[in-house]
Amino acid sequence: MKRPTIADVARRAGVSKGAVSYALNGQPGVSEATRRRILAIAAEIGFSPSSAARALSGATANAVGLALCRPARTLGIEPFFMALISGVEAELSARSYALTLQVVADHEAEVAVYRRWWAERRVDGVLVCDLRIDDRRVPALEELQLPAVVIGGPGHTGRLASVWSDDAAALAETVEYLVALGHRRIARVGGLPTLLHTEIRNNAFDAVCRRLGLDDATTVWSDYTGEEGTRATRRLLSSANRPTAMIYDNDVMAIAGLSVAQEMGLAVPGDLSIVAWDDSPLCQLVHPPLTAVGRDIPAYGAHAARQLLAVIAGEPVTVFQDETAHLTPRGSTAPPRRR
Amino acid sequence: MKRPTIADVARRAGVSKGAVSYALNGQPGVSEATRRRILAIAAEIGFSPSSAARALSGATANAVGLALCRPARTLGIEPFFMALISGVEAELSARSYALTLQVVADHEAEVAVYRRWWAERRVDGVLVCDLRIDDRRVPALEELQLPAVVIGGPGHTGRLASVWSDDAAALAETVEYLVALGHRRIARVGGLPTLLHTEIRNNAFDAVCRRLGLDDATTVWSDYTGEEGTRATRRLLSSANRPTAMIYDNDVMAIAGLSVAQEMGLAVPGDLSIVAWDDSPLCQLVHPPLTAVGRDIPAYGAHAARQLLAVIAGEPVTVFQDETAHLTPRGSTAPPRRR
Repeated sequence: MKRPTIADVARRAGVSKGAVSYALNGQPGVSEATRRRILAIAAEIGFSPSSAARALSGATANAVGLALCRPARTLGIEPFFMALISGVEAELSARSYALTLQVVADHEAEVAVYRRWWAERRVDGVLVCDLRIDDRRVPALEELQLPAVVIGGPGHTGRLASVWSDDAAALAETVEYLVALGHRRIARVGGLPTLLHTEIRNNAFDAVCRRLGLDDATTVWSDYTGEEGTRATRRLLSSANRPTAMIYDNDVMAIAGLSVAQEMGLAVPGDLSIVAWDDSPLCQLVHPPLTAVGRDIPAYGAHAARQLLAVIAGEPVTVFQDETAHLTPRGSTAPPRRR
Repeated sequence: MKRPTIADVARRAGVSKGAVSYALNGQPGVSEATRRRILAIAAEIGFSPSSAARALSGATANAVGLALCRPARTLGIEPFFMALISGVEAELSARSYALTLQVVADHEAEVAVYRRWWAERRVDGVLVCDLRIDDRRVPALEELQLPAVVIGGPGHTGRLASVWSDDAAALAETVEYLVALGHRRIARVGGLPTLLHTEIRNNAFDAVCRRLGLDDATTVWSDYTGEEGTRATRRLLSSANRPTAMIYDNDVMAIAGLSVAQEMGLAVPGDLSIVAWDDSPLCQLVHPPLTAVGRDIPAYGAHAARQLLAVIAGEPVTVFQDETAHLTPRGSTAPPRRR
């Protein structure tokens, strides 16, 4: 299993390895005829100046890193990440950049990966997901001076570039819609409470419920899995004063919630309205199809990748606000049935 | 944005770059005391011998490539790939290997990516998914002599290493179970007809239906998306002699099928039994939970990664048969209601 080396090219061309290097790098030291012959031989046997050599010489690694700090079982079922990755990948491919993926156990491990990637010139920059409020990765990346784009915000991103979307506005729109339908008892199943975007949605939910005078609004938190979505829904629907509408922080939990309602003999949307977040195609697979808050996630990934390539190219660090998610009403929301 | 270089270590240590190189590579030319001082300085300022330098010197890239030839919209919703990737990644991380991911449009583009990765020493080997019957990637990889493990089979893998699982046996078990429940009209919604594992399941389905004397067995093919699962189910359930049981080649389509049954007023499992394939956690999110054929997909990915690392290390090429998927009956299958 031998790849062609510079020595193979030199041997075939009958010149020294140094001459091959001169020829490939366009340096003086070989005649024009010899240069052409060497390039032809290199092309013929499939030798190309290695990315390793280019990296050593100060050129780029032509790779971007993405470390995902989520349990594998969440990654497998969460359409959000694959949609994000497909968008990142589409943008990188078009510019001949590779995507290096690593699943990490925690932020300490993630920072260690960044340190190694950068020291070993494995990547030219990184994309950072799942921003927390006090996120140790931000100062660590600032200190490393590793080009980075944070997917999240607004704020809490230090001097790093970022792309974000206004979750607070999307959540307020959703609650206002449910209240306009006549709902007063609204519950929300939030995501991981340590994440910044969960905190942003918490605050937005509290604010809009206060503004609209909803005294019975409740939030419970979860880890985004169907299991926790199921448990949270069962508990909320078993309470004396059960909600007439529920908002879920992703679509996997919303689908789990729909099943719990069916299992408990509650009609959706007659007895319970359901709103999902993310609006992956899963929302339209179930019956009734789920009303959902969504936006173009592959485009979000592409924007983040494009911004990272700009930072790598030395362009100024910017904060990019992506489109705000919008509500798509489907069969799972309606005015509450009088009881 | 400056990474520490060998020159920084040399300057701090007050020695030549050559001396730093000797020290880092354990070569003679520096005293033991100087070697220890140089290594301490390198550690202190975060310089590590770059992977680029190691690659140039004939060492490995410490990276494995995975090119996925599926439309982005399928990847986003298909739990199989993220589960597979999480298993591959867990095994690679434990051995300090990175995973390089690329989405490609077709097999021609995929082979071009392999060629570039190998020429540029970006990867030490690749994992190959979605094997076809006449798969041009197999001879291309043999010719490149790029270490590779095919995830699929049995057969059609040339001289390449492979991991596979006996889909034919799993499908036969499923049909026998449905027939034991009393079903005679069984339909199957298959995956992409160009894939080898679809062909294997086709042949197994035909064989077991013939053996059990099922004259009304039907297969239709799809692209694994919920949309095609929906259309196929609606068409089959609208036919004069509609099936009483359906088997789907993935779980996303099975969930779509369940929704179509609900939309058409058919009770599951009373009027229609449903069996899903892959058994991701999605199967247990819907009501009723789906009977499914499944196995440990992250473990499958880990086995493939382990085998690839063995091939990279020069160990003999082998064919590894993974566990056979097994049927887990849940609420979506029952004896057919008399009509």
